[in-house]
Amino acid sequence: MALTRRHALAGAAALAAAPLMPGLPAKAAAPIAGKQNASFYRYKVGDAEVTVISDGATTFPLGDSFVLNAKKDEVNAALEKAFRPRDKMTINFGPLVINTGGKLVVVDTGNGPAAFASSKGAVGQFASNMTAAGIDPKAIDVVVISHFHGDHVNGLLTADNQLAFPNAEVLVPAVEWKYWMDDGEMSRASGDRMVGLFKNNRRVFETGLNKKVTPYEWGKEVAPGMLAVESIGHTPGHTSYVLSSGADKVFIQSDVTNDPDLFARNPGWHLMFDQDPAQAEITRRKVYDMIAAEKLSVQGFHYPFPGLAHLEKDGSGYRWIPAPWKPVI
Amino acid sequence: MALTRRHALAGAAALAAAPLMPGLPAKAAAPIAGKQNASFYRYKVGDAEVTVISDGATTFPLGDSFVLNAKKDEVNAALEKAFRPRDKMTINFGPLVINTGGKLVVVDTGNGPAAFASSKGAVGQFASNMTAAGIDPKAIDVVVISHFHGDHVNGLLTADNQLAFPNAEVLVPAVEWKYWMDDGEMSRASGDRMVGLFKNNRRVFETGLNKKVTPYEWGKEVAPGMLAVESIGHTPGHTSYVLSSGADKVFIQSDVTNDPDLFARNPGWHLMFDQDPAQAEITRRKVYDMIAAEKLSVQGFHYPFPGLAHLEKDGSGYRWIPAPWKPVI
Repeated sequence: MALTRRHALAGAAALAAAPLMPGLPAKAAAPIAGKQNASFYRYKVGDAEVTVISDGATTFPLGDSFVLNAKKDEVNAALEKAFRPRDKMTINFGPLVINTGGKLVVVDTGNGPAAFASSKGAVGQFASNMTAAGIDPKAIDVVVISHFHGDHVNGLLTADNQLAFPNAEVLVPAVEWKYWMDDGEMSRASGDRMVGLFKNNRRVFETGLNKKVTPYEWGKEVAPGMLAVESIGHTPGHTSYVLSSGADKVFIQSDVTNDPDLFARNPGWHLMFDQDPAQAEITRRKVYDMIAAEKLSVQGFHYPFPGLAHLEKDGSGYRWIPAPWKPVI
Repeated sequence: MALTRRHALAGAAALAAAPLMPGLPAKAAAPIAGKQNASFYRYKVGDAEVTVISDGATTFPLGDSFVLNAKKDEVNAALEKAFRPRDKMTINFGPLVINTGGKLVVVDTGNGPAAFASSKGAVGQFASNMTAAGIDPKAIDVVVISHFHGDHVNGLLTADNQLAFPNAEVLVPAVEWKYWMDDGEMSRASGDRMVGLFKNNRRVFETGLNKKVTPYEWGKEVAPGMLAVESIGHTPGHTSYVLSSGADKVFIQSDVTNDPDLFARNPGWHLMFDQDPAQAEITRRKVYDMIAAEKLSVQGFHYPFPGLAHLEKDGSGYRWIPAPWKPVI
């Protein structure tokens, strides 16, 4: 029988008509495993070792305003172009552990234990996947926070509000720290989401961490070989990083884009979670022009796991090209 | 400091000039892990559960004749377009374990224990990654072989030449079986590679398996919901599969292409391992036209792990678009 399109389309009907091979042994069926591999992945940047540790993914109905300046039909078209289902969004979360050779550095901390419980394990996986990766939270020297949204800071605390990384110094962007801890800014916050963010940051940093953080400046190293660079718009103090070792480097973008199938392909689209969408777009275009021109690797917090990719110019946007998985480092 | 291209380019010089954050705790550096995650990945096709289990990857210098009908410069250009290094090839190997709900089915078996030893673990990882995935080789009901190349059949035997899947029926393409077991065909084999393949297949199937195999025909099910379809050219009996469950399906291509960055992008390119390159090209174009037109999922044995993708037409070839990793099934 030659291959024809019919075979791919026929489905159950043709299969029912095709006899099973004779002689298959009769025994109890093996149970469905139903459980994914622990989602962590390692790669080298020169002498440094990056472990991407998924915090999981959340799926929700696509709303009319997920992209502020595009119609839901346009967003659905972008999803379909990426062979993804219409009318729903899946957002991935990818914190990192970087071993610089001198320091063990966590970059962002995921949605945290309360989200793990309420999502039934769909998100908040950072702690369990870190354990699967053989990394002890007590061994972490430094936690670097890119910005003060819950999916980046809530993993700083355990379920009983203890420090998740008890021996780590916590580094936060100075501009971000000043903004979210400012009582005047908090009093001027409008809308449930912004008020909620201010409250959550007070919960995490004032109550949980007792303000024991070290603000960092852009243009400085936050760990050996890891330079903090300003990439504002998503939040007032949003920060990205360039990790360099020898001739090798990767641009750790944080939330310069959310989902790349939408916002790398359409850098002019404004995400509902961008606090200053116009500034976020300026940053996004500048950063992605640079990454594409220099053929840099980019590590995206909201890219599908493991989130390491290259970018190429395509029309008015960018195509993201995932790095091939290496079964051996 | 605003983000400029300089930061990404500056590298060690700029980093050396940037002072480290003060107050980092002084303690012993954490050791580099140096070990990749076990490379297995699960997804559902209707009620069936597919576990992709990497057998590893091999990297070797790009020769002048890896692609028979393209210049090395053209191949290097294709590698660079995919953000891969010039002058070397990495080939991935991805056997499957499919739980159909009724049967636990292995599809191809990887490079086997001798290759594991000689490659120092770079390939031949199927057995160890299957263990990591919690799958007992003794629980396998059926092993389906797509074709008789060493990276597909050598994992049928253990290092001491015992059956790797002792309770499984071994299903082989009838045309492939007839060809490789035919003494006349063997006597007419020319060149070291073809002679070696005949000898290896006698070693595996006559000595190791004592000819205890069940030949299967195209157009028939080899397991519940899994239809064998002819896709010849790479070998005389090369076989692909359509796995269907409910409305869901995936095209398991086996070696319709080798590396998709080369042969999906350039379906007219002829791989040095294609026994009948012209027929392999006819098959490749027919299969990929169908997959792209029907927006089918494709599972590729030589695609980068985990090897599940879609295909879209792009110019005279196809772009492969990896399916996003799901941290929860």
